[in-house]
Amino acid sequence: MRTLVPSPVRVIGTGLIGGSLGMALTRAGAAVQVEDVSPGTTALAVELGVGALPAAEDPDPALVLVAAPPDVAAGLVDRALRAWPEALVADVASVKATVLDGLRALARPEDLPRYIGAHPMAGREVSGVIAARADLFRGRPFVVVPHESTGAEAVTVLKGLATEIGSVPIVLDAASHDTAVAQVSHVPQVMASLLGATLLEPTESALGLAGQGLRDTTRIADSDPRLWVEILGANAGAVRTVLGEVRERLDQVMGALETLSGSPDPAIGSRRALADLVADGNRGVRRIPGKHGGSTEVFATLVVLVPDRPGELARLLGEIGEIGVNLEDLRLEHEIGRAVGLAHIAVDAAREDLLTRELADRGWTVAEA
Amino acid sequence: MRTLVPSPVRVIGTGLIGGSLGMALTRAGAAVQVEDVSPGTTALAVELGVGALPAAEDPDPALVLVAAPPDVAAGLVDRALRAWPEALVADVASVKATVLDGLRALARPEDLPRYIGAHPMAGREVSGVIAARADLFRGRPFVVVPHESTGAEAVTVLKGLATEIGSVPIVLDAASHDTAVAQVSHVPQVMASLLGATLLEPTESALGLAGQGLRDTTRIADSDPRLWVEILGANAGAVRTVLGEVRERLDQVMGALETLSGSPDPAIGSRRALADLVADGNRGVRRIPGKHGGSTEVFATLVVLVPDRPGELARLLGEIGEIGVNLEDLRLEHEIGRAVGLAHIAVDAAREDLLTRELADRGWTVAEA
Repeated sequence: MRTLVPSPVRVIGTGLIGGSLGMALTRAGAAVQVEDVSPGTTALAVELGVGALPAAEDPDPALVLVAAPPDVAAGLVDRALRAWPEALVADVASVKATVLDGLRALARPEDLPRYIGAHPMAGREVSGVIAARADLFRGRPFVVVPHESTGAEAVTVLKGLATEIGSVPIVLDAASHDTAVAQVSHVPQVMASLLGATLLEPTESALGLAGQGLRDTTRIADSDPRLWVEILGANAGAVRTVLGEVRERLDQVMGALETLSGSPDPAIGSRRALADLVADGNRGVRRIPGKHGGSTEVFATLVVLVPDRPGELARLLGEIGEIGVNLEDLRLEHEIGRAVGLAHIAVDAAREDLLTRELADRGWTVAEA
Repeated sequence: MRTLVPSPVRVIGTGLIGGSLGMALTRAGAAVQVEDVSPGTTALAVELGVGALPAAEDPDPALVLVAAPPDVAAGLVDRALRAWPEALVADVASVKATVLDGLRALARPEDLPRYIGAHPMAGREVSGVIAARADLFRGRPFVVVPHESTGAEAVTVLKGLATEIGSVPIVLDAASHDTAVAQVSHVPQVMASLLGATLLEPTESALGLAGQGLRDTTRIADSDPRLWVEILGANAGAVRTVLGEVRERLDQVMGALETLSGSPDPAIGSRRALADLVADGNRGVRRIPGKHGGSTEVFATLVVLVPDRPGELARLLGEIGEIGVNLEDLRLEHEIGRAVGLAHIAVDAAREDLLTRELADRGWTVAEA
C-alpha cells in the first residue's frame, strides 16, 4: 500500500492517543513499532492492532511519534533524537510551548531541525489503549507545530501523516497553538467546571428545574481531574490570560447586578453592561465555524415531537429519508416526566418548508426551533 | 370537556408564554379570553387559537393569568384584583420576588389572598405569539409560588392547571424560586455569555480547532439581550450571590495558574486547586437529574459511526428497534470535513453489551463513549 507516511514509525507511549495513531497508521499501510513504559500496555497495544514489537532485524525508525504527557515528552523526544540520528521525531502532547522549551534545554542544537511538534485533536474524556480507535482523528483538526529550525520536509511529512489518518492538517507555531487551545478548549473546560461546581449548592427541588441549557453548558465538566491538571498546568500562562478577560467582564457584570439589586431606578449604565455581555456573547458564539466550515445559519432547525417508545424515532427518520432530505444534525431532547422526546433536526434551509409540510401531512407535530 | 381549570380564564399579555398558555388551556377545555396592550397582537392571538376576545355577555373571569415582563406584572395583577373581586389572579413572570414586592406596595391587603405567583418554564430563545405552541410546557416544570397569605385553594387551582397543560407542578416560595432559577438558569446564561464573549478574540484558525465541547458550552449564549437584561435585572441579588462563589473560585484558579506559569516546580497546592476545581465540577454536574428523575449513570452511551448519507441513521435506528432496545437519548455529532457522523446513543446500561454485540454483528462500528 502506498502511503505518505515514512516507515517504520515508532510510537512511544501507547495510551489513547498513541494507540489510536498506531492503529490509524497501520490501517494506512505504515509499518508501526510500539513501545511503552508498561510491558503489559505494550502487549495489549500489539494485541489490539496498534502495531508490532520492534524486532532486532528491523531498520531504524524513519519517524518517531512520542505520545506522552507534556511533563515527560521533552525527555523522550531528546532520547529518540539521540538514538536514531536519521529519524524525524514528533511529540503529540496537547500543549506545545512547554515541550519545546524543555527540549531546547536538553537537546543538542544539531538535533533540533529533526524535531517537530504535533497535536492531533481528539476531545475524548476516556483514556487508555483500550479506548483507542483507528478513526479517532477522522475529520478532526491535526495541528502541525514547527519551530524556527524545523526542516521544511518535516512539515510535509506531518501534513501527509495527518491526511493519511483522515484528519485536517493546520500549521501553527507553538505559541499560537497554545493560545488557540486555551481559547477553544481549556478555558471552556474551566468555565464548565466553575459552573458545575456551583451545582453543589442547589437543593434537589432547585435542580429539578434544570433544562437542556444547564445540561449543555456543564456536559464537559464531567471530565478527568488528573488529565486536566496536567493540561491546565502546562498551558497555565495562556489559560490565565483568557481567564483574566473573563474576570474583568465578570466584575463589570457583578457591579451592574449590585447596582440593580440595590435600587429600583439604577443608572442606565448597569443595564447596558448586561446587554453588552449578552450581545458580545451572541457575536462570539456566531464566530464558531459550522459543520462544513461555513456559518451555521444556512441550516434550519425543526423540532418534531417523538413519542417515547421503541421504533418511533426510526420511523421519523425513515420518513425523512423517504422525503429525500438529508439530516445535517440531530439532537433528541428528553425532559423529566414527559412522554415525548423532541427531535431537533437541522436541514438545509432550502428544504425546510418541504420537510415541514411533508412531515405534518404524515401526522407528525412539527415546530420551528 | 371536564377540566381542572376554572373558566373563563383571562390571559393578559399574549406573547410567547401567554399565547402558549392560552392555546394549551383552550385545548384542555377551558374558555379563554385574551387581552394584550397591542390590538394587532390580540387579533393575531385570536386567529392563532389562543382564545377569544372578551364579549359583553361573558361572565367575569374566574382566573386571570398575567403574562407580562416582571417590571409591569405587579401593576397588571393589582388592576385585575380590583376589577374582578372574585377572581384568582396569577402572574407568570420568570422572576417572582420583585413582582410580589411590587404588588405588596400597590394592592389592598384584602386582595392579596387571591394572588399567587407561577412560573411555567419553557426555555425557548424565540419570542412573540407567532412562536406560541400549545405543547410548550409539556413535560416541563411549572413552579407554583404562593406567598404567606395565598389561599390553599389557589395552590390547588394552579397545580391543576399545570397538570392540564401537561407540565409538572412544583411548589416553591418566591425566594426559593428566584434562588433556584439563578442557579440552574440565570448563572448558566451568564457563564455561557462570558465564554461566548471571549470568542471575539481568537483568530479564525484558532476557531477552526473548536470541537463539540465549545459548541455545547456556548449554545445558549446566542440568546436575546433585551430579554436577559430584564431577567437578570429582576433577579440581580440571587444571581450576584452565585456569581460571587464563581468569582471566588476563579480567583483561586487564576492564582494557581499564576504560580504554575511562573515556576517549573510550584507548590503542591497549585495543582490541588486545579484538581479540586475539576473534581467539584464532576460532583456538581452529576447532581443534575436524569431523564426519569434519577441519576444519569444508569445509562450507558455507545458511539456508532454513521455514514453521512440520507437513510443511514434511519437504518441504524431501525436496527436498534429490531434488536428491541429503547433509546434513552441520541445526539448526532458532525465535525468539519468528516464523511461520517457519530451517533451517541444512550441506553439502559443493562442492555449495553447486547446492543454493542448485535450492532457489531450487523456491520456497524461501535465504540464506548
